[in-house]
Amino acid sequence: MRATVMYGADDVRIENVPDPSIIEPTDAIIRVARASICGSDLWPYNDMPKSETGQSMGHEAIGVVTDVGSDVRTVEPGQIVVMPFAISDGTCAFCHEGLHTACVHVGFFGNNGTNGAQAEALRIPYADGTLYPLEVGEDDALLPSLLTLSDVMGTGHHAAVAARVAPGHRVAVVGDGGVGLCGVIAAKRLGAEQIIVLGRHAERIALAREFGATDVVSERGEEAVERVKELTGSYGVHSVLECVGTGDSTLTAVEIARPGGAVGRVGVPHYEAIPAAQPSFYKNVSIAGGPAPARAYIDELLPDILEGRIDPGRVFDRVVRLDGVPDGYRAMNDREAIKVMVNPS
Amino acid sequence: MRATVMYGADDVRIENVPDPSIIEPTDAIIRVARASICGSDLWPYNDMPKSETGQSMGHEAIGVVTDVGSDVRTVEPGQIVVMPFAISDGTCAFCHEGLHTACVHVGFFGNNGTNGAQAEALRIPYADGTLYPLEVGEDDALLPSLLTLSDVMGTGHHAAVAARVAPGHRVAVVGDGGVGLCGVIAAKRLGAEQIIVLGRHAERIALAREFGATDVVSERGEEAVERVKELTGSYGVHSVLECVGTGDSTLTAVEIARPGGAVGRVGVPHYEAIPAAQPSFYKNVSIAGGPAPARAYIDELLPDILEGRIDPGRVFDRVVRLDGVPDGYRAMNDREAIKVMVNPS
Repeated sequence: MRATVMYGADDVRIENVPDPSIIEPTDAIIRVARASICGSDLWPYNDMPKSETGQSMGHEAIGVVTDVGSDVRTVEPGQIVVMPFAISDGTCAFCHEGLHTACVHVGFFGNNGTNGAQAEALRIPYADGTLYPLEVGEDDALLPSLLTLSDVMGTGHHAAVAARVAPGHRVAVVGDGGVGLCGVIAAKRLGAEQIIVLGRHAERIALAREFGATDVVSERGEEAVERVKELTGSYGVHSVLECVGTGDSTLTAVEIARPGGAVGRVGVPHYEAIPAAQPSFYKNVSIAGGPAPARAYIDELLPDILEGRIDPGRVFDRVVRLDGVPDGYRAMNDREAIKVMVNPS
Repeated sequence: MRATVMYGADDVRIENVPDPSIIEPTDAIIRVARASICGSDLWPYNDMPKSETGQSMGHEAIGVVTDVGSDVRTVEPGQIVVMPFAISDGTCAFCHEGLHTACVHVGFFGNNGTNGAQAEALRIPYADGTLYPLEVGEDDALLPSLLTLSDVMGTGHHAAVAARVAPGHRVAVVGDGGVGLCGVIAAKRLGAEQIIVLGRHAERIALAREFGATDVVSERGEEAVERVKELTGSYGVHSVLECVGTGDSTLTAVEIARPGGAVGRVGVPHYEAIPAAQPSFYKNVSIAGGPAPARAYIDELLPDILEGRIDPGRVFDRVVRLDGVPDGYRAMNDREAIKVMVNPS
């Protein structure tokens, strides 16, 4: 079968690789119906050292089950499923607490040698715990939005939860990528009254406004902080969704939080220490977040997609076949596309 | 009157200063019945640059009102009151939210030129919002415990709240000073099942055990982390109360937190950035806390003191007159005393 392999920065290839097969009795195999490129894939696209063996890429997918191991109980061949980006057994203490990304058997697709989803098929460990069965057809118009449940919508929602968004809150979303845009959806869904998006790309900002953003701040750094304060009666926002992952963006996030407010971090941190330890302390600002337990959030988010109340699939503004994946990386990296969907068939 | 003035590291003097008087109509004057030395006073005791004018010290007190301005409504001369360490107007949005330490008129006694409580008397701005009237006599046996409501017990409680202590939780308290010890009381009061205190001073540890600590870890750094993991089935604790304020103690706090857990910081941070930004992210550990809204917590904590369910006043193991304050600083700094109470009369 064909799969996406990254051999280093700016070196994404589509290659023939062995078909996946059941290894453990708890495995399933899925044929990938739709996958996507994640903003976090752009980090290695920019900084991955050269590798002889390469890394199979992709951690967001909707698929059709084609085979299951002898211990799999909740999915069966033919079923369409969401594949959240993290492997979870569904039975450990952390899964029971809804923190599937801390599962004692956790693994991340397309990371550390695991197989990725920007491919024709892949093996799913702990299929019962990992996969979420859907009741839709493979060509359902909702497929793009359902695909976002594998990561980007769940991650935007996690940022909002970690930032304690609540009805009436003033909210800021740092970053206008796919996660930031889904963060806007999540903030509105949880009742935010004001949603300020910090970003500077016209088409992303336009979509943010359609999703519910009330204000836009295109400045950066101290100017952005001043602008947010102007927009919020000088105190800042109750909740900040940090959807970038740099030290600078995190500093801005802390600085625009209101005393007693919260920062929800979902941008994969590319910094060693969280800036502004003293300002966050003196303001009693909490800093939370991490890899989203996307699997746990599907129960809550799915009905809103099925009933048309949210439409996160709109973050996909480009669809490619597998051959188009390398250019998809380039287009997202050049901010030419917001988010790229992959249809491997 | 006589008051404590610090002129630099290791230079604490008792001096004659002008009596305080009403300046604003919202002021009150209190005669100090009991004050205390705070662990945070030891920071300037160790590192304050030499000052010509000095800084009036002390921010924890119980006092008797001796005079009030024309706009004061809720306290009157003769009344005994708790003086929380922060000035708060009681009317702003933050006070209404219970975050008095973010009051728009906030100030901290014995800081930045404000008058301190290790003195015979002091002026209280925004007396209606700041002071909490008590229904006890000046010689009540509960006075030491009531005095802790001005800071140390409220701060220990704040650490526990910020660390989201809940029934059944495994909790660790980093630091065995007065705040850490009150953190043990707070954790037990909120239903913690296991309370691990990280400290190494025999008499403090003994008191921690009487307050409810179930385990003691005397190691530091990586050894402490390993020991806590051994004590918690390898995952760490749900809640960490960080009661020291160094980068090292904060690193330990993050490292011993269980995935999905929380660190409550109340040790005044003597570090620029919060260590371990990536481990805290990948574990989804939240980091919260700051200056405790001690004023807000009195309603909740006072009945437990009055009815004898908690006895935080036991953290005071030495009582001095004003003349003994300089030696009190030395004794706390040398870990010869846990916490020093001052009886200025």
